[in-house]
Amino acid sequence: MRADAARNRDRVLEAAEFVLTRDGLDAPIRDIARQAGVGVGTVYRQYPTKEALYQAIMADRMERLAAHASSLAAQTDAGTIDAGSAFFTFFDSIVTGATTKTIFADALTDAGIDAKAASGEAGGHDVLIAIETLLVQAQRAGAVRTDAGLPEVLGLLSGACLAAKQQHWDAALRERTLAIIFDGLRA
Amino acid sequence: MRADAARNRDRVLEAAEFVLTRDGLDAPIRDIARQAGVGVGTVYRQYPTKEALYQAIMADRMERLAAHASSLAAQTDAGTIDAGSAFFTFFDSIVTGATTKTIFADALTDAGIDAKAASGEAGGHDVLIAIETLLVQAQRAGAVRTDAGLPEVLGLLSGACLAAKQQHWDAALRERTLAIIFDGLRA
Repeated sequence: MRADAARNRDRVLEAAEFVLTRDGLDAPIRDIARQAGVGVGTVYRQYPTKEALYQAIMADRMERLAAHASSLAAQTDAGTIDAGSAFFTFFDSIVTGATTKTIFADALTDAGIDAKAASGEAGGHDVLIAIETLLVQAQRAGAVRTDAGLPEVLGLLSGACLAAKQQHWDAALRERTLAIIFDGLRA
Repeated sequence: MRADAARNRDRVLEAAEFVLTRDGLDAPIRDIARQAGVGVGTVYRQYPTKEALYQAIMADRMERLAAHASSLAAQTDAGTIDAGSAFFTFFDSIVTGATTKTIFADALTDAGIDAKAASGEAGGHDVLIAIETLLVQAQRAGAVRTDAGLPEVLGLLSGACLAAKQQHWDAALRERTLAIIFDGLRA
């Protein structure tokens, strides 16, 4: 993809996520095109259906999440941050996303966090691998209890995302609730 | 209500919960009547619509939950069990219900655990009060950290119920995941 085409794609995805989050999944494509500063035809050429657009947003989100996790893992390897902080920071950022962006939470629920649904779909598999990498690093460093496996961590993470979304947690409630979960996860 | 009418009502509710859990919410009334050993007319007289029946099951469930909590609170007052065990037992029994009975989980989600939806509806308010009573008892006894308020506890409980239902937790995964949450909640 040429650089300007890639920029165009990013701009449309960003605008789409903004508009769909603000107005709901029924928001018209013309509002997304206006927000992105492109013609309606440009959006339709890239994403012929709303479903294709929604899938692309999810895949993009998952890519960013996996990239964030990889960066945290690399920083841990380099000794820039400790493995416990990397793991808990990533856990927090996922739940924060679920609280603040409904579409993000849906993406996670549909494609990312639910282990059964996540096998390869929309990049969810990469996110699972990233979570496991951060978990194992944190356990090796003695920051997370070793009897907490990936299924338990995904259960806690998914539960926090679902509850945050359903109960509309504010930042303070999220912080206090995650503090309890994190204390339970510590070695 | 006369004693035999009350027994009849209990039998219909029990049969309805069994059949709806097994066959889904679209199960026909005649299957429920057959399971209860009563005529279809008897069910329709008590519950003219499926919605009325569903509401009655939810209210009944909430009543039982609140009664269970009251009994645990009374046992704590009497010194038969410690306040921490009472609180964690109740937490566990709610999540177990969410894992094993979909209709129960729906009832909890719709009417019981979500604080916003629960105010007075289908007995959900009684369950919230019961949870708060057990929480305060456990905190006074030094078994649960005092900075965990009702919103955090409901967040954790609701998250565990939602994740258990969505991810189909088995008993072992439920036990291991709740152990992490409970360790986080301890004083």
